[in-house]
Amino acid sequence: MNSYTATPRTRVRRLPKRAVYDKAQVHAILDEGVVCHMGFSHQNLPYVIPTLYGRVGDTLYMHGSGASRTLKTMAEGIDVCVTVTLLDAYVLARSAFHHSMNYRSVVVLGRARPVREEGPKLAALQAITDHIVPGRWDEVRGPNALEMKQTLVLELPLTEVSAKVRTGPPVDDEEDYALPVWAGIVPVHSTVTQSIPDERLLAGAPQFDVRRLARRARATP
Amino acid sequence: MNSYTATPRTRVRRLPKRAVYDKAQVHAILDEGVVCHMGFSHQNLPYVIPTLYGRVGDTLYMHGSGASRTLKTMAEGIDVCVTVTLLDAYVLARSAFHHSMNYRSVVVLGRARPVREEGPKLAALQAITDHIVPGRWDEVRGPNALEMKQTLVLELPLTEVSAKVRTGPPVDDEEDYALPVWAGIVPVHSTVTQSIPDERLLAGAPQFDVRRLARRARATP
Repeated sequence: MNSYTATPRTRVRRLPKRAVYDKAQVHAILDEGVVCHMGFSHQNLPYVIPTLYGRVGDTLYMHGSGASRTLKTMAEGIDVCVTVTLLDAYVLARSAFHHSMNYRSVVVLGRARPVREEGPKLAALQAITDHIVPGRWDEVRGPNALEMKQTLVLELPLTEVSAKVRTGPPVDDEEDYALPVWAGIVPVHSTVTQSIPDERLLAGAPQFDVRRLARRARATP
Repeated sequence: MNSYTATPRTRVRRLPKRAVYDKAQVHAILDEGVVCHMGFSHQNLPYVIPTLYGRVGDTLYMHGSGASRTLKTMAEGIDVCVTVTLLDAYVLARSAFHHSMNYRSVVVLGRARPVREEGPKLAALQAITDHIVPGRWDEVRGPNALEMKQTLVLELPLTEVSAKVRTGPPVDDEEDYALPVWAGIVPVHSTVTQSIPDERLLAGAPQFDVRRLARRARATP
């Protein structure tokens, strides 16, 4: 299966031409993002928290340390909506109405469950750490028993998934093309330019090459 | 009142030293962001959608055109959680556990209501448009009657509000400072470098100065 199957909940109704269900595209968006926004309901009220995440195949892992008490106390899992949004450009049209953004976003629906077994939990933490910087897990001290206990990891199968993608120039009403207004797009990039070593860095420690973050950020070292 | 009052729902329990309730700081984060993530519950399940927004004083306005049918059909408003997150740096520690991000995020809780009256709705749309590019509203064709009808605007009072801010270097366990691992932070910037004029731009149309986006993106024209 190279595509996710649209469900009543993930079928994109608004501007369906922007809908993407292709797995490779969905995975690429998830892998390029840094932070997801995870929504859940508690006592029938919505909450949205930003958190780090990682992906292994068709499973998303969310780091729960920044999550609420609600998440920590659940045993059977919790229904979530995890959204990852990448901004690509400001879209400036000739009319206010047609202003927009070029973006790529993924919405994942489903039940997130805590990962409790040590092996899978370590693998999930590796995915989350390596999602920040590829290969980082092998360079740093791994979690000890206390840290493992203090860390909440949620797993969410990539089953009910949809993406929306907008690209290209503004689309104006035909008569508005005669207006002497600047219109076009302004690309926006997530850029890393330098690394700032910790003050207590050992003299013999290796350098850090910011191009390792280039997967998601256009590094200009 | 220069600060928001913490409520049981907005009191930051996890890492409370990162909590910020100061209005000026909250407003600055909201004004620097481009897209918010709005969460709501529908049939007891959570949804999180990215959308454009704008702020006027202590009211947030969300653009609802990308929103679901759920939002469009509500009359009495809907409980939402609107979260805006700005990433400032990757925080690379000597241990996997202490990896983090420097970030500034705002969470707004409350009941969002559709803005129906023409005057307030126009003012809200101006706020949303000018949030994309300051001053843009006065340069472009304003919405006509049909566009006004097609556009959903939600208003959310900034009442239950909290922010979280992490800054500074990684904080490692004391014994880990002896490890020969690179540690430090890698700042990430949202950068605009060029504008791409629409193919049908009139020859006499004014230029666009990308520094107008500098409020939120470090413009390097």
